[in-house]
Amino acid sequence: SSNIVLIGRALRNMFILPDFPLFAAQVDKLYEEIKMNTGGELATYIPQLARQNPDHWGISLCTIDGQRHSVGDTAVPFSLQSCSKAPIYAEVLTRHGSDHVHRFVGHEPSGRTFNDLCLNDSNKPHNPMNNSGAMLMLSLLNQSRNMADRFDDIMQRFKEMAGGEYIGFSNATFLSEKESGNRNYALCYLLQEYGCFPEGVNPMETLDLYFQVCSLEVTCESGSVIAATLANGGICPMTGKKVFDPAAVRDALTVMSSCGMYDYSGQFAFKVGMPAKSGVAGGIMVVVPNVMGFMLFSPPLDRFGNSVRGADFCEKIVSTYNFHNYDNLLHATKKQDP
Amino acid sequence: SSNIVLIGRALRNMFILPDFPLFAAQVDKLYEEIKMNTGGELATYIPQLARQNPDHWGISLCTIDGQRHSVGDTAVPFSLQSCSKAPIYAEVLTRHGSDHVHRFVGHEPSGRTFNDLCLNDSNKPHNPMNNSGAMLMLSLLNQSRNMADRFDDIMQRFKEMAGGEYIGFSNATFLSEKESGNRNYALCYLLQEYGCFPEGVNPMETLDLYFQVCSLEVTCESGSVIAATLANGGICPMTGKKVFDPAAVRDALTVMSSCGMYDYSGQFAFKVGMPAKSGVAGGIMVVVPNVMGFMLFSPPLDRFGNSVRGADFCEKIVSTYNFHNYDNLLHATKKQDP
Amino acid sequence: SSNIVLIGRALRNMFILPDFPLFAAQVDKLYEEIKMNTGGELATYIPQLARQNPDHWGISLCTIDGQRHSVGDTAVPFSLQSCSKAPIYAEVLTRHGSDHVHRFVGHEPSGRTFNDLCLNDSNKPHNPMNNSGAMLMLSLLNQSRNMADRFDDIMQRFKEMAGGEYIGFSNATFLSEKESGNRNYALCYLLQEYGCFPEGVNPMETLDLYFQVCSLEVTCESGSVIAATLANGGICPMTGKKVFDPAAVRDALTVMSSCGMYDYSGQFAFKVGMPAKSGVAGGIMVVVPNVMGFMLFSPPLDRFGNSVRGADFCEKIVSTYNFHNYDNLLHATKKQDP
Amino acid sequence: SSNIVLIGRALRNMFILPDFPLFAAQVDKLYEEIKMNTGGELATYIPQLARQNPDHWGISLCTIDGQRHSVGDTAVPFSLQSCSKAPIYAEVLTRHGSDHVHRFVGHEPSGRTFNDLCLNDSNKPHNPMNNSGAMLMLSLLNQSRNMADRFDDIMQRFKEMAGGEYIGFSNATFLSEKESGNRNYALCYLLQEYGCFPEGVNPMETLDLYFQVCSLEVTCESGSVIAATLANGGICPMTGKKVFDPAAVRDALTVMSSCGMYDYSGQFAFKVGMPAKSGVAGGIMVVVPNVMGFMLFSPPLDRFGNSVRGADFCEKIVSTYNFHNYDNLLHATKKQDP
Repeated sequence: SSNIVLIGRALRNMFILPDFPLFAAQVDKLYEEIKMNTGGELATYIPQLARQNPDHWGISLCTIDGQRHSVGDTAVPFSLQSCSKAPIYAEVLTRHGSDHVHRFVGHEPSGRTFNDLCLNDSNKPHNPMNNSGAMLMLSLLNQSRNMADRFDDIMQRFKEMAGGEYIGFSNATFLSEKESGNRNYALCYLLQEYGCFPEGVNPMETLDLYFQVCSLEVTCESGSVIAATLANGGICPMTGKKVFDPAAVRDALTVMSSCGMYDYSGQFAFKVGMPAKSGVAGGIMVVVPNVMGFMLFSPPLDRFGNSVRGADFCEKIVSTYNFHNYDNLLHATKKQDP
Repeated sequence: SSNIVLIGRALRNMFILPDFPLFAAQVDKLYEEIKMNTGGELATYIPQLARQNPDHWGISLCTIDGQRHSVGDTAVPFSLQSCSKAPIYAEVLTRHGSDHVHRFVGHEPSGRTFNDLCLNDSNKPHNPMNNSGAMLMLSLLNQSRNMADRFDDIMQRFKEMAGGEYIGFSNATFLSEKESGNRNYALCYLLQEYGCFPEGVNPMETLDLYFQVCSLEVTCESGSVIAATLANGGICPMTGKKVFDPAAVRDALTVMSSCGMYDYSGQFAFKVGMPAKSGVAGGIMVVVPNVMGFMLFSPPLDRFGNSVRGADFCEKIVSTYNFHNYDNLLHATKKQDP
Repeated sequence: SSNIVLIGRALRNMFILPDFPLFAAQVDKLYEEIKMNTGGELATYIPQLARQNPDHWGISLCTIDGQRHSVGDTAVPFSLQSCSKAPIYAEVLTRHGSDHVHRFVGHEPSGRTFNDLCLNDSNKPHNPMNNSGAMLMLSLLNQSRNMADRFDDIMQRFKEMAGGEYIGFSNATFLSEKESGNRNYALCYLLQEYGCFPEGVNPMETLDLYFQVCSLEVTCESGSVIAATLANGGICPMTGKKVFDPAAVRDALTVMSSCGMYDYSGQFAFKVGMPAKSGVAGGIMVVVPNVMGFMLFSPPLDRFGNSVRGADFCEKIVSTYNFHNYDNLLHATKKQDP
Repeated sequence: SSNIVLIGRALRNMFILPDFPLFAAQVDKLYEEIKMNTGGELATYIPQLARQNPDHWGISLCTIDGQRHSVGDTAVPFSLQSCSKAPIYAEVLTRHGSDHVHRFVGHEPSGRTFNDLCLNDSNKPHNPMNNSGAMLMLSLLNQSRNMADRFDDIMQRFKEMAGGEYIGFSNATFLSEKESGNRNYALCYLLQEYGCFPEGVNPMETLDLYFQVCSLEVTCESGSVIAATLANGGICPMTGKKVFDPAAVRDALTVMSSCGMYDYSGQFAFKVGMPAKSGVAGGIMVVVPNVMGFMLFSPPLDRFGNSVRGADFCEKIVSTYNFHNYDNLLHATKKQDP
C-alpha cells in the first residue's frame, strides 16, 4: 500500500521535495567534493573499528514521503554505536512518557569542559545522548524480562523504524566493546553508586544490553529510513506504520539538537542547526524535520569523535539549503528550498 | 503605507493569525490565570528595581504582519536590562558579520554549574547573552566615536526596532547600576586582563555603555514590536523598515534559544522551545519565528532571575499552541494553530 | 631483648616522655571528657559498619621508646579501612622508592570541591591517601605473584609494623565491601581506562586486594604500634626491627599531613598539624614524629567521614601539648612538653 | 646590646649552626652551581619587572641567633611583590588573632586547577597567600585611618621585622602595577560583590594599599632578617624585639608551607618541606623554623611564577641538610646537620 501512496503522490506531483532529481544531483556533487577530505582518524579502541576502511563514504536520504537517494558506500553495514541513542530515547519516551523518563535523566548539554563521567546537579546523567544517559534509557526498557527477550524486542523495534530494511548485529563488536569498555563499566558502577537506576535494575545486564545496542548494524540506506521516521513525526515513511509517539519525537529532536554531536554539539547547533546524532563507527543520523532523514557514513573521526566527512556534509548542505533550524525566517537571503 | 498594507491583508483575510480575536481571547485567559501567581521576589540589588510594583503584569504581542494585542500593565515603562542583549547582538552581527563577531565571543551555553565570571576554553565569553559577552558586543559598536554619539546611535537603533514606539532611558537606574555593579566591574577588568576586547577599546567606557543600555526602557507594547522585528527576519512589521540582516536574526534566535534564560535556558529550550531573552527588571522578550513577538513584564523573579509570571506564560502558551521549535512535526497530536 | 632496652632506659630515666604517668593521666582526662561527645553517625553503606557500637571509644598510644598507654575500648578489633592507606604507601615506597611510585600517583590534596573520582592534571590519582591512589599502590605490590601470596605478604608486613600484635581480617567486611563497592568498581575501571595501572596489572584482582586490605583489623593497641613505627622513622619500637625505609616514612608523613583526613585535611593541617589517617570504621592513626603514635577509635563519623571523638581528641591534645608541626617554635607561648 | 649577645654566644660557642663557616661555604658552592642555571623568563606584565637584570642572583641568610651570610647580588633592592603576603598575614594575625582573621579568609590551598579568581565554598578567598586573600588582610589593617598613616604604619612594621635594615618603596612599580592590574581590579570588585570585606572597607583604597605593599623593596640582606624573624617565633634576631605573636608565626608558617609557592606549592611541600613565599620580582623568602631565614633573589621565573634559581636552591639545600619538615626523623639516613 505504501507503493500506492507513493504513486499517488507522484501522479499529483506533491512530493515534499518537488524537484527531487535536482536535489539528488546536488547531494552527489557534495559527495564527490567531500570524498577528497581525507582528514580524521579511525577509532582505535577496539579492533573492529580500527579495521574499518577509511575510504568508505556514503550518503543515503529518505524523505518523509518515501523518496530515496543513495550515493557511495551505502550498502556497507556499520555499527550504530551512539547513533542508537536517539532512537532508543524516542522509544523509551514513547513507552513511558517524558515525565517518567526525565525523573532519571536530564535534557541539557553538559558543557564542553565537563567529561561525561560527571552527573548533573540532580545526580542524573546530563542527557540521554551520552553514555550514562543511554544506559539509563535501556534500564527502562522491559526491565523485568529476560535478556534475550529484551534484545529481541529492541532489534524488532529498530526494524520497524527502518521499515524492515537491514538491521544487523556484530557480535565481534559487542565482544570487543565489552572487553575494552572500562569507561562504560566505570560509568555503570557510578550510576549504581548514586542510585540513578530505577529499582530492581541489574546494572551489569543493562551494560550488556548497552554494548549490544551499540553493536547493532545498519547501512546508510536502512539508517536513512530511521532518520526519516524521526523526520516524519514517528511514522515510518516506507510503511506508514506509527513507530514513535509524536511527542516523543519532538523531545528526541530537541535533545539531538543540543546534545547529539558530543562536545561539538554547541557549535553544530549554531552552524548547522539540524538535529543529529553521531556514532564512533563513523555514522551520523541527521533529521530535517518534516522533510527527510539522512544517514551519513565515513569512518575517519575528528577530535570530537564525529565523522569528518559527515560533519563536513552537514555544514555544506546547510549553507546551500535552508535546513538550519531558523533558516526559514521570512526575508532571509534566499538559500534554496530543496 | 504600513496601514495600507494592514488593510489590504485584512480585506484578503491573509493574516498570519487567521482568527486573531480568538487567539487574543486565549492570551487574555492566560493573563487572568497567571495574575494569581504571586510567586517570586523583586530584584533588590538596586533601589530602582526593589521599588517596582510586584503586581505589575502585562502581555503585549505583535505579529509579523502588524496585528497587535495588549493586556494588563503594558504601558508601564521598565528597564530592558538583559533583554537588551538579544537586539544588541543582532545589531552587532548586522554591522560586522558573524565571523568577525565570533572572534570575540562564543555561541554556546556555559553549563549550569559555571558562574558567568568564567570564560570559555578559548578565553572568550561563552555567549553574547551573558554580561561579559554583552560587554564585548558593545565594545564592537562605534568604538572610535565619542560616548554621546555611541549612546545616541544605540538609542536610535532601538527606536527603529520598536517602529518608533516608546524607548526611554532611566538615569536613576543607570546611576544605581554603576554604583552597585561590582560584579560587572570585575567582569570588565577580567575581560581586559585576558585581552578579550578588540584593540583600542576603553574598558571603563564600554562598561558605562553597558550600564546605559541596561537602563534603556520599553513598555510591553514597544518591546513587543522589537520582538516582532526579530520574528520577522529583521524587518520591523510596523514600518516595513529593514533593521537587521536576516542572517544576524538567525544567529540571534539560535543563541537566544540556547542561552537566553540564564541558568534556566536548558530547561526552557526543552520545555518551551522558543527563542527568548529575559531581564532582571521582569521583562521577557519572546520570539515565535515567522509569526509574532511577545514582550512579557512582571517584576517578581524566580531563583534564576526570570520573571515568574512571564516564564509561566511561556510554558502555558506552548502547551496550547504549536510554538515549540519542533511542534510543527507532521502527525503531532494536534495542538492548536494560533 | 626489647624489654631489656626498656628497662635500661627506665633505669637511666631517658624516655622521650620523661613524666609518662602525668601524660597518661592527661590523656585519660581527655578520654573522659570526649566520651560525652555523642555527635556523628555510623557509616551505613555496609551492615558490618552500621552494626558497630557507637559508644565504643578507645585511645592507645605507644612512644618511640616503647612506653604504652591505653584507655577505653582498646582491645576491640575494628577494620582499618582507609587507615591502611598510610602504611601501604610507606610499604610501597620502601620497596620501590619515591621516584618510581610517583610515576603512578600524585602527592597533593585534591582540593575540597573535587570528588575523588577525578584524576589530577597528569591523569594520575591525586595522592595515595584516597581510594584510587591506594588501588594504584596495591597494584605495585607483588603484582606478578598470586593473590593468596600477595595477601599473605601484606598481612605479614602489617604484623611487623605492629610488633607482632593483633592483626585480623574480617571476611564479612570484605564480602560486604565487595558487594556494595560500586564507587570503587567505578574508580578501578576508570583507572584502567586512563592507563593508570602499571603494565600487566589485573584491575579486578587489585580491587579485590584493596577490599581485603580495607578489611584488615587492628585494635587500638596494635594500631598504636603501627603509628609508633611511623613516628620512629620506620623502626618498630617494640621489636627494634626496621620495617620501613626512613625516606619512605618521611614521604608518608608529608602526605598524611596534607591529605590524611579526607576533605577535612586542610583544616586539620592548619588546626592540628599532625600527620594522621582516618578510616570509615572510626579509626584515626596519628603520628607525633620522633615522639609517639596514637590509634584512636570511635565509630560515629562527622560529615567528612572522620571519627568525631577521634578528631575532637586531636584538637584538644594539640591545644595542650606542642604537637602541632610548628609548635616547637622558639618563644612560643608555652604549651606543655609531654 | 645585640652585639654583646652575639659575642657572648660566640664565646660560649653556642650558636644554632655550630660550624657556620662550613655551612656558609656549602651555600656558596650551591650559589656558584646554580648561577649556571639560566632557565626561566622575566615577568613582563609591567616594565619595571621586565627590565630587571636576569643575571642577578643573590642569597642571604640570617640565623635565629643573628649570624649572617650573603653571597651574590644581595644588596640589590627588589620589590617584595607576593613575598609581602607572609609577613602581612603574620602582622594581621598578631593584631587581630586567628579567629577573627579567618572569618574573612580560608587557610587551605585552592587546588592546582582552580584559578585564583575563585573563592572557596564559604565565599572567602582560599588563603592569605593569594592576591584576594592578601587584599582581605590589608583591609583589616587600620581600616579607619587615612591612607598615608596606613602605609606609614606598614612600612614601619616591615622595618621592625627587618631589624631596621633596608626597606624601600618603588613608586614606579606601584604606578605600573596600578595601571596594569586588571586582574587585581577584577578580584577586588569580586570580593566587594560577594561581601567579603569587613564593613566600612573602601575596596579601591584597599587595592591601592595592596599595590603599594607589593611595591615595597628589600634587599636579600634585609629580607633574610624578616625571614629569620619568622624562624625565630616572631622575635627579630638582630634587635631582640618582639615583632609578631608566636601563635601568629605558627599559623603563617603553616599556611606558607601549603600555599606559599603558587601552583607549585603542593610539590614544594612534598619535595622541599620548608615554609616559603615567592614573589614575581624573583624573591623567595624561606624559613627554617628555629634555625634561620633565607632571602633568595633571581628574577627569571618558572611557569608557576617562582624564581628558577631560588626554587633550585631550595631543592638542593634540602637534599643536603635536614631542613625538610620531616627530615629530623629518628633513624633517617643521615643528611648533614647544618
